[in-house]
Amino acid sequence: MTDRRSTPVSAEELPDADGAPRPGDSYVQSFARGLAVLRSFGAQAPQQTLSEVAERAQLTRAGARRILHTLLHLGYVEADGRLFRLTPKVLDLGYAYLSSLPVWTQAQPLLEELMQTLRQSCSATVLDGDDIVYVVRLSAHRTMSINLGIGSRLPAYCTSMGRVLLSGLPPEALRERLSRMALLKITPATKVDIEVLMEEIAQVRRQGWCLVQEELEQGLIALAAPVFDRAGKVVAAINVSGQTAGPSVAHLLEHSLPKLLDTASRVSALVRVQQ
Amino acid sequence: MTDRRSTPVSAEELPDADGAPRPGDSYVQSFARGLAVLRSFGAQAPQQTLSEVAERAQLTRAGARRILHTLLHLGYVEADGRLFRLTPKVLDLGYAYLSSLPVWTQAQPLLEELMQTLRQSCSATVLDGDDIVYVVRLSAHRTMSINLGIGSRLPAYCTSMGRVLLSGLPPEALRERLSRMALLKITPATKVDIEVLMEEIAQVRRQGWCLVQEELEQGLIALAAPVFDRAGKVVAAINVSGQTAGPSVAHLLEHSLPKLLDTASRVSALVRVQQ
Repeated sequence: MTDRRSTPVSAEELPDADGAPRPGDSYVQSFARGLAVLRSFGAQAPQQTLSEVAERAQLTRAGARRILHTLLHLGYVEADGRLFRLTPKVLDLGYAYLSSLPVWTQAQPLLEELMQTLRQSCSATVLDGDDIVYVVRLSAHRTMSINLGIGSRLPAYCTSMGRVLLSGLPPEALRERLSRMALLKITPATKVDIEVLMEEIAQVRRQGWCLVQEELEQGLIALAAPVFDRAGKVVAAINVSGQTAGPSVAHLLEHSLPKLLDTASRVSALVRVQQ
Repeated sequence: MTDRRSTPVSAEELPDADGAPRPGDSYVQSFARGLAVLRSFGAQAPQQTLSEVAERAQLTRAGARRILHTLLHLGYVEADGRLFRLTPKVLDLGYAYLSSLPVWTQAQPLLEELMQTLRQSCSATVLDGDDIVYVVRLSAHRTMSINLGIGSRLPAYCTSMGRVLLSGLPPEALRERLSRMALLKITPATKVDIEVLMEEIAQVRRQGWCLVQEELEQGLIALAAPVFDRAGKVVAAINVSGQTAGPSVAHLLEHSLPKLLDTASRVSALVRVQQ
C-alpha cells in the first residue's frame, strides 16, 4: 500500500467521500472490517459466536477472529464462553456524534414538553443520504409496529420528516437525489413518482410543514416541521405522529400543528444561539 | 506483525481483554487510532480542522490525515472546507449496541409512563467498569446542572443506579472493584470510605433499592432499583431523580418508590421474556 506520509497534502486537498482512498487500501479495508464487526451485532444478533460474526460481517473466520481480538482488547466487545457481545463502550462513539450536534441537546427537553402537551409521540431526525436518522425518539404509546430508537433509519421520501429535510435541498439537487433513490410503494398510498414528490416537497418548502398519511405504514399519520440553523439551512426535522384511528387530520392541523411549529421555532432559536 | 491466520486458534481459546493482543500489534493500534479520532469530536469540538483532530486524538498530522481519509471514505466523517464533522452514520455503531440490549427496548416505554406519572426525570443505566452508562434518559425538567444523554457516564460509587449495579457483584469482587476506583469527595456528602460503601451497598442488596442524597451534586436526590435477567443477575438499574427542594424524602419513599419498584419488576419480566 502507498505510504501517504511520503506525499503530504494540505487539509484543503483532502478528498470527499468519492475521493482518493483506493478500494485496495489495506488500512481503509481493515478499519471498515472492524466497524462491520461492530455493526454485525444488534437486535437479531445480540450475542454471536466467532462463526456467526464471520458470516454476518462477511469475513473469513481468521479475519473475524483478528478483529474480535482487537475489539476485546480495546474493550468494545466482551466474551462469555464462546459468545461475544458489545459493551456499553460502543455508545461512546455514538455519543461523540450526538453531543457534537447542537440540535440534539436543545431539542430533547422541548420535545418532552411537546409530547406531554399533545400526548403523541415526538421525534427529531437528521438527513443522511437517502435516509432520516433518529436523534430523539419519544413514544407516547406504541404508535408503530416497528420499534424505533436513536440511530434507527427510515427512507426520507415517504416520511414527514424526510420530506421536510429534503425540502432544504435546492430543486436540482433534490431531483438528482430522488432519481437515485429506490422509491418503493410500501403502502397503497406511498407516492413514488418523482414529479409528484417534487411538487409535494416544493409545497412543504412553501408552507413550512409536512403532513404524511399512511405512506410508510397503514394507520400511521405524521406531521413534521423544520429546524433551521443561523444560515437558514434545514438542519433537522421534528414531528408528532399518531394513529389514523386517533385524532382526525382536522384536529391534528388545528391543535397539534401550531404547537409543533412553536416547538420547531424554539429549537431553531436555541440552535442558532449555540452555534 | 505476526500473521494470526497462520496460527489458527479455536474460538474457545480467544483471550479476554487482558489477553493476547500485543501493545505493538499494528492492527490493534490503527483501529484504536481510528476510534480515537471519532471520539475526539463532541460538544467541545463539534467541528475540527486536521490539526485540531491530530492534537485531540494525540496523533501526528500525517496519522490524523490518513484516518480522516478513511473515515471520509467510509462516510463516518464529512468535510466542509477545512472543517471536519461526524455524520449520523456514527450512530449506527451505538445503535448496534442499544438494539442488542434487551433492557433498552423494554425499558423505554415503561420509563416514559413512569415519568408521566411521577413528573420526575427517569433513566436506565448499565455498568461498564467503574461507571454507569445511560441507555435511557428522560428529563421531566432540568433537574441537573449537567446535560446527560444516552451514552454519557457517571461514577458508579456515588450514584443511586451505580450502587444498585454494584450490589449485583459478589462481595469480594465488589471490594476489589471499589479499591481500584478513584473515590473522590465530589460534595461534602459523598461517601468515599470503602467500608462505608461496602455496608451501604450490602443494604441496597438486601432492600432492593437505593436512595442517594446529594452525593453527586448538591440539591440532587435519586432513587434507584435493579432490573434482573432470567438468571437473577442485575443487568441494569432504573431511577427517578429530583431536587431536594422538591418532594421530601418521605414523599419519595411513600409515593415514588412503590411505582419505581413496580416499573423495575415489569422491565425485568419483559427482559426475561426477550432473552
